[in-house]
Amino acid sequence: MTQTQAAAPFRVPADPGPTRFAFAVHASDGKARTGAIAMMRGMIRTPAFMPVGTAATVKAMRPAEVRASGADIILGNTYHLMLRPGAERVAALGGVHAFSGWERPMLTDSGGYQVMSLSNLAKVSERGVAFASHIDGSRHMLTPERSMEIQRLLGSDIVMCFDELVPTTATRGVQEQAMERSMRWARRSREGFDAGGTHAERAALFGIQQGALDAELRQQSAQALIDIGFDGYAVGGLAVGEGQEAMFACLDHCVGHLPADKPRYLMGVGKPDDIVGAVERGIDMFDCVLPTRSGRNGQAFTWAGPLNIRNARYAEDQGPLDPRCDCPVCTNVSRAYLHHLVKAGEMLGAMLMTQHNLHFYQALMAGLRGAIVEGALTSFADRFRADYASKAF
Amino acid sequence: MTQTQAAAPFRVPADPGPTRFAFAVHASDGKARTGAIAMMRGMIRTPAFMPVGTAATVKAMRPAEVRASGADIILGNTYHLMLRPGAERVAALGGVHAFSGWERPMLTDSGGYQVMSLSNLAKVSERGVAFASHIDGSRHMLTPERSMEIQRLLGSDIVMCFDELVPTTATRGVQEQAMERSMRWARRSREGFDAGGTHAERAALFGIQQGALDAELRQQSAQALIDIGFDGYAVGGLAVGEGQEAMFACLDHCVGHLPADKPRYLMGVGKPDDIVGAVERGIDMFDCVLPTRSGRNGQAFTWAGPLNIRNARYAEDQGPLDPRCDCPVCTNVSRAYLHHLVKAGEMLGAMLMTQHNLHFYQALMAGLRGAIVEGALTSFADRFRADYASKAF
Ligand SMILES: [Zn+2]
Ligand SMILES: [Zn+2]
Repeated sequence: MTQTQAAAPFRVPADPGPTRFAFAVHASDGKARTGAIAMMRGMIRTPAFMPVGTAATVKAMRPAEVRASGADIILGNTYHLMLRPGAERVAALGGVHAFSGWERPMLTDSGGYQVMSLSNLAKVSERGVAFASHIDGSRHMLTPERSMEIQRLLGSDIVMCFDELVPTTATRGVQEQAMERSMRWARRSREGFDAGGTHAERAALFGIQQGALDAELRQQSAQALIDIGFDGYAVGGLAVGEGQEAMFACLDHCVGHLPADKPRYLMGVGKPDDIVGAVERGIDMFDCVLPTRSGRNGQAFTWAGPLNIRNARYAEDQGPLDPRCDCPVCTNVSRAYLHHLVKAGEMLGAMLMTQHNLHFYQALMAGLRGAIVEGALTSFADRFRADYASKAF
Repeated sequence: MTQTQAAAPFRVPADPGPTRFAFAVHASDGKARTGAIAMMRGMIRTPAFMPVGTAATVKAMRPAEVRASGADIILGNTYHLMLRPGAERVAALGGVHAFSGWERPMLTDSGGYQVMSLSNLAKVSERGVAFASHIDGSRHMLTPERSMEIQRLLGSDIVMCFDELVPTTATRGVQEQAMERSMRWARRSREGFDAGGTHAERAALFGIQQGALDAELRQQSAQALIDIGFDGYAVGGLAVGEGQEAMFACLDHCVGHLPADKPRYLMGVGKPDDIVGAVERGIDMFDCVLPTRSGRNGQAFTWAGPLNIRNARYAEDQGPLDPRCDCPVCTNVSRAYLHHLVKAGEMLGAMLMTQHNLHFYQALMAGLRGAIVEGALTSFADRFRADYASKAF
C-alpha cells in the first residue's frame, strides 16, 4: 500500500568476471549438491532453474522481471532464433544479450530437439538434419558445425552439443545407433566450438548423454563424452513421456556415470516434484517451459500444488494466489482479480501468472539449495511433496 | 547498463487528500489553460490524458507502469465491468481500486457509448437502454439510475452522466431529440448520483454536452447542463468519424458555452495532433484507446509521427524507437528488437510498444502544460505539428 517505486527499468546488470567457467560444489547431501558456476556474465547458483526464452524473450516478462524472480541464467532456442530473426542478424545486432537486454548468462540448446519436433520434412543423415521451417517453409540444414556456428553468432554462454533424438519407444538397436551418432556429433561439436575463436575463450560447451532408458547405453554415452571432455554434462532424452518413475529410475544409474566435478543438467525438466526428485539424484541444472506456458494458460504453481485460476471458486477469492509466496503478484493482487483477468483474456493475466510461477520455481530452487547446505534435503523434499499433494489452497 | 533495480511492485500510492473535487487554473494561454484537479485519491494535472483501462486493466500494463508513464488518472468502462466481473462483485471485492491495484483517481464512462456500439439488440426508450451482452447474450438494462449505481459500486472517482448517442449522420430532428433526452437523463443521473450516500461525498459527477455539430443544439445542451450543475463538463458525440476539421470547428464554438471554472473533457480523443488542437481550444481532459490499442498492433507514436515497427526497414535498426523519448523502452531496447518481438507475436512486443506509447502521450501532455505556463503554446504546437508531419524517423 505504501510502495512508491516506479516501474523498473529492465536492463540487467552483468557483473562480469574474469572466469570463463568454474564450477564449485559448496555442500552436498546424499547425491545432491549445491554450489555455483562462475562465468564472465555472472554467477549461476546451483541447483539452478533456467526459464525458457525461446525467441529472445521469456514470454510476457521483461528481463529485469526475470532477474527479480531469482533467475541467474535463461535458456534460448537455437532453432527459433536461426529462423527468426536469424543468427547472422542477431550477430550483426551485437548478439542476443545486447539484442534482448538480458545481460547475464544464457544457455542455448543445439536445435536438435526442436528440429525433430517442430520443423517439417526433417531428414537425418550422418552429416546432420535437413528440414523446412515451420514459419515459412524455407529449407535449412543443421549440422553439428552449423549449430556451433549459430550458437556462437548468438553469443551463447553455455553451448549445447548437437545430437540426434529418437523416440523412447524406438527399438534398442535404433537407440544405440542414435546414441552412437550423437557421440560422433558431440566430437564434431567440440571441434566446431573450439574453432570459434574468442567466443570459445568466453563460453562453455556441454555434452549430452543419450541412451534412452538403457543403463548400458547411458554408460557408454557418458564414457564417450568424458573421453572428448566438456565443461558440463547434460542428461538428454528424458522427460519425453516415459513418466516420472521411469525417469527417476534412469537418473538413479545414469547420473553416476557423469563427472562429479562438473555440472549436470537435466534437459526439459520439469514439474516441481520432478525437479525435487532429480536434485535428490544429483542434478544441478534444469530448464522447462512449464512455469511460463502454464502461466499463460491460467495454471499457477503453489506450495499446495497446481491451481487453475479459471476455476469459478476463485471469482470472489480475496486471498493471494499463494499465501506462502512473497512475489509482487501475491503481494499485490487477489485470486479474484487474476481470475477476472485470465477469464477476460487480458494480457496482464498472462503477465502476472507467469511472474508468480517464475518466482515460485526460483523459490523452490532456493529452498533446495538451503536444505542441502543444512544437510536437511530429505526432510525438505518430504515436506514439499506432502504439501504439494495436499491441494490445501 | 548499470541499473540494479528489481522489477517494481505495482501498487500505486494514493496520496489521498481531504478535497472531494477542486479545479484550479494555474495559467492560461489563449483559450488553453493548465492547472490541476484535487481529489481524495490524488491530484490530476491538466491538460490530462487518461489511458483506457477497459476491464480493470490498462491492457498489457501493470498499474505502477501506467503511473510511471505519468498518468494521474485512468478510465474504466462501465459496460465491460458490469458484464464481467459484474459491478456487485467488484463492490464485494472492495471496489475497482482495491481490485485492480490502481489507487489513484479513476473516471468511469456511463456505458452509454459502448451499449450502442458493442452490445446486441439494443433498444432505447425514455427509461433507458435494454440490450444483450456481447459476451454471453445475457439481457441487461442500463438507465441513468442503474449507470449511477454501477459507477458507485465500482467506486469511481469521476462519474459520467448516462446519455443517448445517435450517429452524426442522423437528421437534425433526431439529433435534437437525442440531445433533449440526454439532458433529461443528465438530471436523472444527477439525482441518482446525489442519492449515492458516502460515495457522493467522495466522488464527482460530470455532465456531457451533446448536439452533434450543430451550434444551436450545443448551446442549448450546455445551458441545460449548467442549470443542473456538475463538477465538470464533457464534450460528447465528437471523434466519431466527422474528421479533425469538423471537430475543431465544433470545438471553436461549443467549448465556450461550458463554464470556465470547471474542467472540460473531450471524450474519446484522440490522435496526438487532435489533442494539441483541442488543448488550443480550451479542453482540459482526454481519453483514448489509441496508445494502447495501436501499441498492441505495432504502431508507435513518436515526435516525428506514427511509425509501424513491423516495417522491414526496422529489422536491423539499432536505434531507439524514438530518439526524443526517455521512456524505459527507448532507453533499453532497439527498434530491431521491437520489430522482432512484434513480428513473432511475442507478448513482450505489445507490452513494450504500449509502454512507450503511454509515455509519449504523457510527455506530450507535459509539454503542453509547460508551454501554456510559459505562454508559448502556439510555438510549441506549431513545432509539434511540423515535427509530427516530418516522418523524419
Ligand atoms: Zn507469488
Ligand atoms: Zn519511448
